[in-house]
Amino acid sequence: MNFAVTIDVRGVEGIADPEGRTIERALGSLGFSGASTVRVGKVITFDLEADDRSSAESTVREMCDRLLANPVIERYEITVSTSS
Amino acid sequence: MNFAVTIDVRGVEGIADPEGRTIERALGSLGFSGASTVRVGKVITFDLEADDRSSAESTVREMCDRLLANPVIERYEITVSTSS
Repeated sequence: MNFAVTIDVRGVEGIADPEGRTIERALGSLGFSGASTVRVGKVITFDLEADDRSSAESTVREMCDRLLANPVIERYEITVSTSS
Repeated sequence: MNFAVTIDVRGVEGIADPEGRTIERALGSLGFSGASTVRVGKVITFDLEADDRSSAESTVREMCDRLLANPVIERYEITVSTSS
């Protein structure tokens, strides 16, 4: 079966987010006020061929732990859905 | 009012995604087979002080057009919700 995978990778709260800080300053320079605690994360999407949903989910979790996220400074959230 | 803003920025289909290609190859090297069309996008989240939801949304759209997304190669999706 073919699954559509979405992985949402975000920095752990309390860890510095320099890209977010830069965006916050740039928004201020452009005259946008009122934006605070800007944080930037990553979304990784792909198609995955797997026997069933639970094996797809465990494969994706292993991909995250081994390659796609840094568990020390990032948290991830996985969504696996059947592709149409 | 304070709003929680989430902006999902993704590459337009058909535009090369070198980061996605690199992840795809790296997954293969690690022994994960079956993943294809890997694409990497960005999620920007922040708090926004605005008078009401519609003014928050139009502000965020302007932020995207002027700074946060490149309309030539990226599409964005905005979610604005009232913070608790």
